[in-house]
Amino acid sequence: MRTAQTWTVGVTGATGYAGGEVCRLLAGHPNLRLTGVHANSSAGRRLGELQPHLLPFADLEVQPSDAASLSGYDVVVLALPHGESAAIAAQLPEDTLVLDCGADHRLTDAAAWQRWYGSAHAGSWPYGLPELPGQREKLAGARRIAVPGCYPTSVTLALAPALAAGLVQPDVVVVAASGTSGAGKSAKPHLLGSEVMGSVSAYGVGGVHRHTPEMVQNLSQAAGQPVRVSFTPTLVPMSRGILATCSAPLTPGVDAEAARAAYAKAYADEPFVQLLPEGQWPTTAQVLGANTVALQLAVDPDAGRLVIVAAVDNLTKGTAGGALQCANLALGLPETTGLPLVGVAP
Amino acid sequence: MRTAQTWTVGVTGATGYAGGEVCRLLAGHPNLRLTGVHANSSAGRRLGELQPHLLPFADLEVQPSDAASLSGYDVVVLALPHGESAAIAAQLPEDTLVLDCGADHRLTDAAAWQRWYGSAHAGSWPYGLPELPGQREKLAGARRIAVPGCYPTSVTLALAPALAAGLVQPDVVVVAASGTSGAGKSAKPHLLGSEVMGSVSAYGVGGVHRHTPEMVQNLSQAAGQPVRVSFTPTLVPMSRGILATCSAPLTPGVDAEAARAAYAKAYADEPFVQLLPEGQWPTTAQVLGANTVALQLAVDPDAGRLVIVAAVDNLTKGTAGGALQCANLALGLPETTGLPLVGVAP
Amino acid sequence: MRTAQTWTVGVTGATGYAGGEVCRLLAGHPNLRLTGVHANSSAGRRLGELQPHLLPFADLEVQPSDAASLSGYDVVVLALPHGESAAIAAQLPEDTLVLDCGADHRLTDAAAWQRWYGSAHAGSWPYGLPELPGQREKLAGARRIAVPGCYPTSVTLALAPALAAGLVQPDVVVVAASGTSGAGKSAKPHLLGSEVMGSVSAYGVGGVHRHTPEMVQNLSQAAGQPVRVSFTPTLVPMSRGILATCSAPLTPGVDAEAARAAYAKAYADEPFVQLLPEGQWPTTAQVLGANTVALQLAVDPDAGRLVIVAAVDNLTKGTAGGALQCANLALGLPETTGLPLVGVAP
Amino acid sequence: MRTAQTWTVGVTGATGYAGGEVCRLLAGHPNLRLTGVHANSSAGRRLGELQPHLLPFADLEVQPSDAASLSGYDVVVLALPHGESAAIAAQLPEDTLVLDCGADHRLTDAAAWQRWYGSAHAGSWPYGLPELPGQREKLAGARRIAVPGCYPTSVTLALAPALAAGLVQPDVVVVAASGTSGAGKSAKPHLLGSEVMGSVSAYGVGGVHRHTPEMVQNLSQAAGQPVRVSFTPTLVPMSRGILATCSAPLTPGVDAEAARAAYAKAYADEPFVQLLPEGQWPTTAQVLGANTVALQLAVDPDAGRLVIVAAVDNLTKGTAGGALQCANLALGLPETTGLPLVGVAP
Repeated sequence: MRTAQTWTVGVTGATGYAGGEVCRLLAGHPNLRLTGVHANSSAGRRLGELQPHLLPFADLEVQPSDAASLSGYDVVVLALPHGESAAIAAQLPEDTLVLDCGADHRLTDAAAWQRWYGSAHAGSWPYGLPELPGQREKLAGARRIAVPGCYPTSVTLALAPALAAGLVQPDVVVVAASGTSGAGKSAKPHLLGSEVMGSVSAYGVGGVHRHTPEMVQNLSQAAGQPVRVSFTPTLVPMSRGILATCSAPLTPGVDAEAARAAYAKAYADEPFVQLLPEGQWPTTAQVLGANTVALQLAVDPDAGRLVIVAAVDNLTKGTAGGALQCANLALGLPETTGLPLVGVAP
Repeated sequence: MRTAQTWTVGVTGATGYAGGEVCRLLAGHPNLRLTGVHANSSAGRRLGELQPHLLPFADLEVQPSDAASLSGYDVVVLALPHGESAAIAAQLPEDTLVLDCGADHRLTDAAAWQRWYGSAHAGSWPYGLPELPGQREKLAGARRIAVPGCYPTSVTLALAPALAAGLVQPDVVVVAASGTSGAGKSAKPHLLGSEVMGSVSAYGVGGVHRHTPEMVQNLSQAAGQPVRVSFTPTLVPMSRGILATCSAPLTPGVDAEAARAAYAKAYADEPFVQLLPEGQWPTTAQVLGANTVALQLAVDPDAGRLVIVAAVDNLTKGTAGGALQCANLALGLPETTGLPLVGVAP
Repeated sequence: MRTAQTWTVGVTGATGYAGGEVCRLLAGHPNLRLTGVHANSSAGRRLGELQPHLLPFADLEVQPSDAASLSGYDVVVLALPHGESAAIAAQLPEDTLVLDCGADHRLTDAAAWQRWYGSAHAGSWPYGLPELPGQREKLAGARRIAVPGCYPTSVTLALAPALAAGLVQPDVVVVAASGTSGAGKSAKPHLLGSEVMGSVSAYGVGGVHRHTPEMVQNLSQAAGQPVRVSFTPTLVPMSRGILATCSAPLTPGVDAEAARAAYAKAYADEPFVQLLPEGQWPTTAQVLGANTVALQLAVDPDAGRLVIVAAVDNLTKGTAGGALQCANLALGLPETTGLPLVGVAP
Repeated sequence: MRTAQTWTVGVTGATGYAGGEVCRLLAGHPNLRLTGVHANSSAGRRLGELQPHLLPFADLEVQPSDAASLSGYDVVVLALPHGESAAIAAQLPEDTLVLDCGADHRLTDAAAWQRWYGSAHAGSWPYGLPELPGQREKLAGARRIAVPGCYPTSVTLALAPALAAGLVQPDVVVVAASGTSGAGKSAKPHLLGSEVMGSVSAYGVGGVHRHTPEMVQNLSQAAGQPVRVSFTPTLVPMSRGILATCSAPLTPGVDAEAARAAYAKAYADEPFVQLLPEGQWPTTAQVLGANTVALQLAVDPDAGRLVIVAAVDNLTKGTAGGALQCANLALGLPETTGLPLVGVAP
């Protein structure tokens, strides 16, 4: 083997949770070399003060988050609040691989963007979920990639095979439990440890969470027809992880065996999607820090529904790991390069 | 005021979580006096060894759990695994108030009991959910009461008004998050702290949880027609609390205002049901240790569903508090006597 | 019994954790009636928005926190940051019972106050720890009471009997684990749920925590000589509770039996101090929401130390419950009136 | 680079927490190849049923845990309860690298073993803490290694430099907070999630924890004289992690600068020991799943003590990571091969 080819990587939003996770994973990636960290604030401070777990990068000095500062990397990861990445991305060189972990380039429908975000649409980029049929090919060689949201990652992987195979009606109900890191690192009273420990709550109820149109887009594409999505996120007392409980009315005649077969087929060759053996149900602990999705399903004949449960780590497969999986594809590396398959359990 | 009338109470299953919560609440009840604790095992030990928080009862000696030992109390609370209470109850005096926190006497349909529990039906008792229309009257003066299950309490209170008022179609989807105390105190590997902390998982998926027929029974009664219930329970990293996220397809023409009005009317006079002000969503922390249910609802016009979220403490309003609320009614005491309204938050 | 005498109570800082706990306990107190809530900010809002668990007080409107607004109550509870209570208290009527949950009036030594808080000493008030020898008498009829800090409550009750009886040398080491509510409700990044769940950390290491001089004061008084205190607080992933692990070098000749006898004697008549049976160790869960302290001790002959472990709920016996215990004494009520003895476990 | 040399590894106790962590780390090790998993029970089951996070090894069949079954590997890791490894190890080939994660071969003093474990001493093996002076050399090429206990790892690394440099008196006090995984995977009631969440407790108080003699041995060796150790472990509501708060009386004349300099010097070249920048205190979250120890110290002039706080992941650096670090040394690999430096935070 020759010396491995390497690419330099700059991460902006590196002081936040998503950006920090990108850095963590880069520490274990043999071909991607983190050479600069950036953030909206904190410029000039050592990364180690702000992200004490990132030991190998502790002495990197945080740099500003603007296009000029971010130029010169082979790969740029944008882990910024929505609305902030489009302007920066537009000024980066075309041959820089830009991975946007924010929402700005995920929706293909300008009207949907306008409705949910209230600003002008920045256009859409190839959508970074290689497990969707045909999507892997679009990511090979791409230089702009819209990394999916954490909820849409879990929900899309949970429901797409059923919709694609016509196992269910296009009318789905999703209730997802998320750890608090999904809400980011900004200090809000309802996210204090004292408030969230020992407590579960719902938020964004009634179809108002901004990840909803992304799910509708993905699932409608899988189904080949418009899909209605009832989505309720809940906040649970843990730092990381999403458990998405998804269901839809069964198409008459579909039984458990057929459902299982469709999922087994859809994910037979997917390195990061794990359809569990029958009877074993996913836990978020089993995928903590790993780039994997654990899935299981059941048919409820009384209620006439198919129920699929998916577990992901919102920061890993749900964001940073998904981003690096796409980077591997874009750069022609084996898709699994540098990505952990094993969760940190218990 | 004359000296308050008091009744003696014996609790069996007092070394478990539900029984322990009954004892805790009895410590604050002015008319009910815990005079004996019983359990299947542990007979002869001090209660304080097994339930160190029950300070005022620490020196009570645990007695056997059989009908002979349980005779002689004014009130007997059975907090036993399902299948164990019927035989004991049958031998207790008719004028003893018997509160069964187990499932044995909840289902009215013998075939449903047989299907879900695989044993002979012991018959049904008045169902201890006073908030159901007409139910309060049946509990006044009763001497046998079937205390509802924790999930059915939350789900029934969340959905009954919508079904009774015809706001939604009789086809509901429920995903409920529960703390681990709902699974009881027996040591099973998947309930170890190391397994549940930092993790969420689903169980009993596909309509197989035994609380399902109880929900079907309650909701069908409220709707006046059979209701289909898709129920998925999940286990979350906290000791106590249930958050039930419930939804159903909206009846055409129903809007948020109409929905809210129906709930406001249904619960206007209920001391323990709290429809939160608009925009405020329930947390399980706010009802920890309290006999209250916190509710909120939203209409999702895109998905065409009404979503209702309910929070209860599974051990308090969900079991032991609900039991004592019924005891108050049965004994002619004010319904709220001795029952905490305020959760232990944060 | 005639109609019970009642006193009106106003609480300032009612939107915080300590103030909220005072309100929670007042809901269960037969003689103290919460009639007004105050806070530095949030004036004009409904208390229910800010403290959703305080159901019976949800419609109280938050009023300003100044002496004029706080006049007119029989009892005023100040649950404010240190440095804010002295000025208000000075303007309240002399016959109003004022309970200061802050630090302003705890230290008797003006120089110590100056050193630790850097401001002028407001003078000291009777110290609200009735379990200290001779202290109960000073609180009877008092109209100004300095409620102890949460750490000093647990540490003083753990160590005072050993020092008073000469069981140990006056050179103690304390490591205390605290839930996050002790740090209050203000949103700081290191107190976010994402940061504290799954993590333990130390803070205020090296003798710099401001509760240290209060411990020194209490323990030196108990010992009758100056006591050196090495105090390290740690933050653990739970909302409430303190577990203080305290030790000191054994006086030669002292054995386990003598040590146990001294504690049994010291706390024989204390309603809120529970010396556990031998072999049973305190947990913070067993005192959650209760006004009790659970204690246990052991002699380590190899290390030549006596080790005492104490568990309290920092918000209940550690603050709000301690305050109401003092109010009971000051008003001539039975000391245990309205105070829960039973923790909310599990 | 030529194809990397690889060694086959068998792990017994692979269904437990320590063994599972060894497997997890092996998944990321380029030279060590897990080829067999063994356990006392569960033989014949798929590893995936018992350790669902170990995705790449899910189809390995669990084999019996006896010397015959364990022969034939280049490396054998014993992750068994104490008392079980000595007999097996004695029958393994001499040139097999055997890493014992249990206690059987840690203590050099047969009398100490007899006192603490009540059985015959199996003899001691090279002690697997390379950071101790002179120890790294003893591990190079070794074929039998006693992996340190989790508490002794953290406590020894925290205190050894101070004792070796004479900064403190040989009389130390340690209070350590541990996650529940340290207690293993066997289902005991006090380790249930319902019991440990929201609760902290002490155990093994009074010098009776079996890790105590191992600390005494290590620290006495570092000090060059007998050291007294007062050790109190506490259980906190998290799965993984140890925070050890250690202190000892300062030698007269030692100040903060001198103390810091001694630690900086002791650990200057240690890849896995991180003396944090001044003012930054360790959290267990920052080392979750990593093979690192985070350290900080402070001088308390009032109490006359040096306080050192150390954070480790009990399963990683505290057990499995420490074991593989030793394996690297024994096999002539770079010491850091395959070992994560970055914790999974938040």
